[in-house]
Amino acid sequence: MRIGLDVGGTKAEAVAVDDDGDIRARVRLATGWGGEEVVRTVIAAVHAVATDASIDMSAVSSVGIGIPGQIDAATGRVSHAVNLGVEDLELAAEVAPVLGVKVRVENDVKAAALGAYALRGGVWGIHPHGGSMAYLNLGTGIAAGIVVGGELWRGTRGTAGEVGHMSVDPVGPLCRCGQRGCVEAFAGGGAVAQRWGRPGRFPVLDVFDAADAGDREAIELRAGIAQGVAAGVRILVLTTDVDVVVLGGGLTALGDRLMADVRVELAASAAASPFMRSLRLEERVELLPSGSPAAALGAALIGAAHNPESEEVLAHG
Amino acid sequence: MRIGLDVGGTKAEAVAVDDDGDIRARVRLATGWGGEEVVRTVIAAVHAVATDASIDMSAVSSVGIGIPGQIDAATGRVSHAVNLGVEDLELAAEVAPVLGVKVRVENDVKAAALGAYALRGGVWGIHPHGGSMAYLNLGTGIAAGIVVGGELWRGTRGTAGEVGHMSVDPVGPLCRCGQRGCVEAFAGGGAVAQRWGRPGRFPVLDVFDAADAGDREAIELRAGIAQGVAAGVRILVLTTDVDVVVLGGGLTALGDRLMADVRVELAASAAASPFMRSLRLEERVELLPSGSPAAALGAALIGAAHNPESEEVLAHG
Repeated sequence: MRIGLDVGGTKAEAVAVDDDGDIRARVRLATGWGGEEVVRTVIAAVHAVATDASIDMSAVSSVGIGIPGQIDAATGRVSHAVNLGVEDLELAAEVAPVLGVKVRVENDVKAAALGAYALRGGVWGIHPHGGSMAYLNLGTGIAAGIVVGGELWRGTRGTAGEVGHMSVDPVGPLCRCGQRGCVEAFAGGGAVAQRWGRPGRFPVLDVFDAADAGDREAIELRAGIAQGVAAGVRILVLTTDVDVVVLGGGLTALGDRLMADVRVELAASAAASPFMRSLRLEERVELLPSGSPAAALGAALIGAAHNPESEEVLAHG
Repeated sequence: MRIGLDVGGTKAEAVAVDDDGDIRARVRLATGWGGEEVVRTVIAAVHAVATDASIDMSAVSSVGIGIPGQIDAATGRVSHAVNLGVEDLELAAEVAPVLGVKVRVENDVKAAALGAYALRGGVWGIHPHGGSMAYLNLGTGIAAGIVVGGELWRGTRGTAGEVGHMSVDPVGPLCRCGQRGCVEAFAGGGAVAQRWGRPGRFPVLDVFDAADAGDREAIELRAGIAQGVAAGVRILVLTTDVDVVVLGGGLTALGDRLMADVRVELAASAAASPFMRSLRLEERVELLPSGSPAAALGAALIGAAHNPESEEVLAHG
């Protein structure tokens, strides 16, 4: 059995995956703040999901952890995970000896990309090594993970998929990165919440509701979200020509309300341009089903994968 | 000996490449107009470069042809090569029986990408299978070829690298594709010539000269060229994280006059954004040396490559 974790800013999700790739157990815990608490959360989540799957830790062959921030996949070190209060953490080295299994760590968006690919049947289904997919994560920030032939496309320096910081409007809203008109400045949950500026638990949902009610500022923000997401889809398909772009992340809780707007945007460029029309982007965008444990499942796959380029962090305990 | 051709709108270039990858002979012929003339040009160019290399056709192991338009690499069919007067042409099937060797056909930008990779030492040099590169072709239109580990990244439908039609300004100039503010609408030689609208053999050069002389319209066009090229570079690196972006095509005849402007644009986004600065884009952009036979060399490599996915068009003659 392989265990995969998705460690987010508020909750950590763990899944236990059997040899057929089926999820046998799934648990959620609140994530603690800071390095020590993150380590504690990871260990607790692994034990909890093992218990839930009625297995002993000796039956766990690997643990994979998807977590925000900059990840050194070779060593399992996490840096700049600001939402977790982690500046630098040797996560694999801290938890592997306690758990007694090998542990691999990956950026949560990259893990979710692999998980989304698997959920679409990419790994165990009809295309054992075929097809390609981009996973566009619409969360506080925006970034993509690209999967080709079942493997993550990392790029030379691990920054492949950073389409959130492509500017698509020189006079667009200021991005937290410092540029204007980035995809993320239009459609990132953090940027939208900041510009909306009103209190609320899920500001993007409030924006959609207010836009439906005729609020002009909300209508503009809502239009920008669709423009940003559509631009992200275009960048990914024009550059890499992946089969499909799967949208995931917090914003996708809006479901069809988001997708309808994005499809209108994609239809507009298709109507303007025979070339864009030939790409059939509207048919190549999918929504990750709400509540899919993509990142945790992807992390389980990463934990189990044989990667000759990365030094495995082996258990000493 | 392998022969590679770059069939352009006005001239066809052929190279003969030995087993070490060195170019042993190189010839140029004027390209005829229309399918029959293109076939005649290809055959004449192959014979001419073989003669120049002092070899008999029996010593030629393969012929590869880089040509504009939509290419079916599996069958060697060329479609929509408007600059050549070709709507549909079974190019490989027409020339292979006459030449008596196997013939492969590839889009000229993709061929140039492989050739540029080889010229950088990617194939025979220090990185036999490593490294990644995008070749951004700045010609009448704009498109890129992406090479990873020595192989072309074609994408699912062969459209990977079509970054010329990514809009980076919703109110930018109208592109011939129908959208506004495409990279190609800003920086494509055809688009710039059309907006400049004055006669001249090399309108983009005239624009640069006029801009130097203080012409306001030329200054604006020149600024747009740098913006478009810089956007193309950003799209490629943010999405695929290739090691390096090599600029080639007609506009690169401007050399440092173009590169200086592009570097200023990239420096501006680096100054605005710590994230963009961390990507070090200025150091990752190179100019293909002027006159490099990248497309012909790349075509020779494609002709010689073993590609199990494509049906070889074998000689019958």
